[in-house]
Amino acid sequence: MSAVVVQTIERTDLNHVDALGKFGVATVHEAQGRKGLLASFMRPIYSGAQIAGNAVTVSLAPADNWMIHVAVEQCREGDLLVVAPTSPSDAGYFGELLATSLASRGVRGLVIAAGCRDVGPLTEMGFPVWSKAISAQGTVKETLGSVNVPVVCAGELVNPGDVIVADDDGVVVVRRDEAADVVGKSQAREDKEAQVRKRLQAGELGLDIYGMREKLADKGLKYV
Amino acid sequence: MSAVVVQTIERTDLNHVDALGKFGVATVHEAQGRKGLLASFMRPIYSGAQIAGNAVTVSLAPADNWMIHVAVEQCREGDLLVVAPTSPSDAGYFGELLATSLASRGVRGLVIAAGCRDVGPLTEMGFPVWSKAISAQGTVKETLGSVNVPVVCAGELVNPGDVIVADDDGVVVVRRDEAADVVGKSQAREDKEAQVRKRLQAGELGLDIYGMREKLADKGLKYV
Amino acid sequence: MSAVVVQTIERTDLNHVDALGKFGVATVHEAQGRKGLLASFMRPIYSGAQIAGNAVTVSLAPADNWMIHVAVEQCREGDLLVVAPTSPSDAGYFGELLATSLASRGVRGLVIAAGCRDVGPLTEMGFPVWSKAISAQGTVKETLGSVNVPVVCAGELVNPGDVIVADDDGVVVVRRDEAADVVGKSQAREDKEAQVRKRLQAGELGLDIYGMREKLADKGLKYV
Amino acid sequence: MSAVVVQTIERTDLNHVDALGKFGVATVHEAQGRKGLLASFMRPIYSGAQIAGNAVTVSLAPADNWMIHVAVEQCREGDLLVVAPTSPSDAGYFGELLATSLASRGVRGLVIAAGCRDVGPLTEMGFPVWSKAISAQGTVKETLGSVNVPVVCAGELVNPGDVIVADDDGVVVVRRDEAADVVGKSQAREDKEAQVRKRLQAGELGLDIYGMREKLADKGLKYV
Amino acid sequence: MSAVVVQTIERTDLNHVDALGKFGVATVHEAQGRKGLLASFMRPIYSGAQIAGNAVTVSLAPADNWMIHVAVEQCREGDLLVVAPTSPSDAGYFGELLATSLASRGVRGLVIAAGCRDVGPLTEMGFPVWSKAISAQGTVKETLGSVNVPVVCAGELVNPGDVIVADDDGVVVVRRDEAADVVGKSQAREDKEAQVRKRLQAGELGLDIYGMREKLADKGLKYV
Amino acid sequence: MSAVVVQTIERTDLNHVDALGKFGVATVHEAQGRKGLLASFMRPIYSGAQIAGNAVTVSLAPADNWMIHVAVEQCREGDLLVVAPTSPSDAGYFGELLATSLASRGVRGLVIAAGCRDVGPLTEMGFPVWSKAISAQGTVKETLGSVNVPVVCAGELVNPGDVIVADDDGVVVVRRDEAADVVGKSQAREDKEAQVRKRLQAGELGLDIYGMREKLADKGLKYV
Repeated sequence: MSAVVVQTIERTDLNHVDALGKFGVATVHEAQGRKGLLASFMRPIYSGAQIAGNAVTVSLAPADNWMIHVAVEQCREGDLLVVAPTSPSDAGYFGELLATSLASRGVRGLVIAAGCRDVGPLTEMGFPVWSKAISAQGTVKETLGSVNVPVVCAGELVNPGDVIVADDDGVVVVRRDEAADVVGKSQAREDKEAQVRKRLQAGELGLDIYGMREKLADKGLKYV
Repeated sequence: MSAVVVQTIERTDLNHVDALGKFGVATVHEAQGRKGLLASFMRPIYSGAQIAGNAVTVSLAPADNWMIHVAVEQCREGDLLVVAPTSPSDAGYFGELLATSLASRGVRGLVIAAGCRDVGPLTEMGFPVWSKAISAQGTVKETLGSVNVPVVCAGELVNPGDVIVADDDGVVVVRRDEAADVVGKSQAREDKEAQVRKRLQAGELGLDIYGMREKLADKGLKYV
Repeated sequence: MSAVVVQTIERTDLNHVDALGKFGVATVHEAQGRKGLLASFMRPIYSGAQIAGNAVTVSLAPADNWMIHVAVEQCREGDLLVVAPTSPSDAGYFGELLATSLASRGVRGLVIAAGCRDVGPLTEMGFPVWSKAISAQGTVKETLGSVNVPVVCAGELVNPGDVIVADDDGVVVVRRDEAADVVGKSQAREDKEAQVRKRLQAGELGLDIYGMREKLADKGLKYV
Repeated sequence: MSAVVVQTIERTDLNHVDALGKFGVATVHEAQGRKGLLASFMRPIYSGAQIAGNAVTVSLAPADNWMIHVAVEQCREGDLLVVAPTSPSDAGYFGELLATSLASRGVRGLVIAAGCRDVGPLTEMGFPVWSKAISAQGTVKETLGSVNVPVVCAGELVNPGDVIVADDDGVVVVRRDEAADVVGKSQAREDKEAQVRKRLQAGELGLDIYGMREKLADKGLKYV
Repeated sequence: MSAVVVQTIERTDLNHVDALGKFGVATVHEAQGRKGLLASFMRPIYSGAQIAGNAVTVSLAPADNWMIHVAVEQCREGDLLVVAPTSPSDAGYFGELLATSLASRGVRGLVIAAGCRDVGPLTEMGFPVWSKAISAQGTVKETLGSVNVPVVCAGELVNPGDVIVADDDGVVVVRRDEAADVVGKSQAREDKEAQVRKRLQAGELGLDIYGMREKLADKGLKYV
Repeated sequence: MSAVVVQTIERTDLNHVDALGKFGVATVHEAQGRKGLLASFMRPIYSGAQIAGNAVTVSLAPADNWMIHVAVEQCREGDLLVVAPTSPSDAGYFGELLATSLASRGVRGLVIAAGCRDVGPLTEMGFPVWSKAISAQGTVKETLGSVNVPVVCAGELVNPGDVIVADDDGVVVVRRDEAADVVGKSQAREDKEAQVRKRLQAGELGLDIYGMREKLADKGLKYV
């Protein structure tokens, strides 16, 4: 695989990014038609973080974190690093020093389909990470990879400049050219859910609010 | 599989349910003879919750949460929803709106051998869930299932009206007709443990308290 | 397998143990040449604990915790129990009563390549455990095993008297005769990282601090 | 858990058992309404076997195969042993000697939600086993369990005298009182499939044979 | 997600496809720069098959095989079906009837990141399948998906008309526009390996053939 | 970790090695007291092989097979290569060329706690491999490791010159200084089993042969 660093990428408007971040993963995932969700093994290293950022992507060799060092330079305010090894490995590619470097450039977090370490210090400094594993296992710096090429991360294609939204529910990717549209659809969904929530709190049933009874009967559901 | 909703089930006396909830999973599991424990992949979405409730059971198709909507209507104060898909799927069948609806009816929590989403909002509203996965993946409403039939959930048979006890250690089921007996045995176990705890705190050894030394010697244990 | 309890073991100087505990897992693992890390499935039952202790080792039969009771007597101030079943089992070998007994002898924690229960009470009493699973499943007391023999725990060889360091990143073992040396190397690493951290916070790049640019170019990395 | 051996069970008529065995797992599973399938981790130790038998069930302690020895005596011609440990364990509970004993009584095979060993000899003697793991790990004979009580095996409830059908696709259970009915439905399904097969071989499309085009269009499928 | 069937795709020249099929997965994967390999959980349902084909892709809902029926019509001689559910599920989406239909159109095999059933009949008819699981679990026909859109299958992006090569080692994808080039590189690799093989058979060491000794010494390898 | 190649190791007498190979894994494992078994995820790449050899051990970096090339030179007639990465990785470290080289030196097989490729060619040439995964994923040659140092492979400690026995049941290690003793105990076990087998074939029950009835009754087993 040729090893390249793409230095110029088109990013998503940060207004859209920030709006998506406020909606959170479940709403955005539903609003864009139930697509884009990364595998459920991607878990936050601490709970409570909810962020969105422009994807700067890294494709690297298993157990080799060299290209993360290369990627730092390509990051700017509002970015979020997305790292995928070319072969599965749970080693600890990322820790507090790299986070310090990224944070100094305004990077909002990391999504890595591999391992992360320094969980304690990362929690203290408030640098959120979604990873497949937590492991202190050190990595080498021997093999090249690429920065800002399309990668498959935890089962989903991520292009540089796509929006990544991450919270306690996991991680979802929104295509750059669909971001504005998904903001609108997410807002519509949130508005609708607010109304439903009130009715449910008042004791109304989803069966009635969503008008499900007839379809259930048509399909043959029997009450005994 | 025929799709039925059983509307009338016999529940366990809430006094017994509440007593079992106070003992917690480990004590109840031991007191009833080390049976009834669900698989250890069933984990709470947030730590610290300890509850018990009458099981309202749901058998549903993979990646299809329609029958949870149906089940809500069958729930009442003191119940706990138990959901098992007929084929493995980690999709997110359950979120904050369904929890709102259940909470308005006095349901105490959810045990689901599949995925859950809206972990943040559920934590905030204090609706406890024990699940196999956390995933925002949306589900459909196309295939019928059943409510209040016996289900196998995470490796254990659960009948409607059985007691479910859940805490940070996992989930255990107590048969309805054994609940009163298990309350008594759990209390006896707790009383006995309180005495042992004091002696252990004082530095006595379990080897002596439990009288193990002779049996160990008989089996051939050698001290070198 | 013969069943023995080795009563006299050589422990590591507690000054070294305590020093290693302060450095934490990632630093110690790197300082000793990236070796000794237990498998990443070993996770703390609650976050925030960071400890080190002298290993008292237990080899026991699957789903049988008898030898943990035997091991308690062999423990003293500054020890840490390391438990490995001879065949995989996620049952709950350990709970609050055993922890009470260990704590009364000054034992600092438990590392078990199997299951643990009473997570709530253990968290309250502040007795840290790193385990492969959380499960209330009870165990029996039927089969002998050994105490203070070398064991393979979660993929690493642990000898009695080796140092175990554990924190949110996982668990690492340091050989007794290398402990003093690893303390020195860990301190050197921490000092060096402190300097790098300042430069990274100031916006310098790792690419420059570590002088990576030339090697990257030599290997053929292309910027486009 | 009380330890009992139920000596008298009602078995399914062997004519029905044998008929179900000929249809195989996929047909039977579909014919009875897509229920009864054991988890897909249950795999044959060698390929090509296709059997059915009356379930003799064994509930036993993890890593303890004592109750299999007890169960042999309860078996007769046309039976099939179903073994489920009360807590997960992949140890090798079963090997060639037990198979020899079972075979001498006309038992047709074993389904075990745990480990099996002596795979080579079992293949040579043609005694089929469906297991969760292959492992030579020895087990003990210390703890009682039960024979011919209902068990949950690989996620499905199995009652003594239910029919077990197993082939390269896995394992399915048929309730004793439904067996005759499922034989009829399986035959009907097989007949129908034979007709469809011919038309498919002739190049007709399932889209047309099953009349799917209209429903697809109604749902909104677009051809571009 | 919009549901579309793309009826016209550009396929790779069958001469290139067939050439790649003869080289096999390991050679092709190395020749194209160690990229394109699907996850190692993709295993053949029987051993010995080695094929290549033009990808016809299917994106479908979990536990719903409706779109496979739709895809059959889009297939022609030399194609290979690639199926990826939008959410993980091990149900049995594919069996002998669908294989019969595909075989009648000259389709060479199936790659499915989910479950397959009818393993016995598929083996007999010689229709090779690489799947994530073997399961008889039936699926529904309720939810639309898409045919001939780019999909991520077992961690790799597959475009319609890309070449899929599959054998006992697993599955690799070759981009359509790189196929001719990879044929050449694969041939070169095979030629080179033939020469090395002869020297190795004659007892020469790879250390000498590949000239590794100096680099090993430079890195500091010590012989003791 | 210092990188060393130990050139002189003490091997086990090939007479003992060959004798152990004939007994197979299950017998040897039991005869030596149920110890030494590698994890059950170690599976043969083809069935039917049963071998034993002197362990030549390799500790290497994840996804880096350089040290296997180094190890070849250290092998001789009757050896068996044991490979363990320092961090988990399922890449394909080993294929047909390395097997050709090993076979030319009389090496009997490979045990690798990682991935293997060229399964087809290896099967054809009859070079048996027990591995954790099958994967064509290429590896690099960048990082040093060690040859003939003690390694933990799939959960068991293996010293250079220990005996490895492997068959369809898995892999077991026998300490060099215990090999002669284990040969005797294995023979005794096999003789005893031959007698039991005859009685079982004749319809006698294990319950009677092993005299289990009294102990079962003492423990409280009830026949109903």
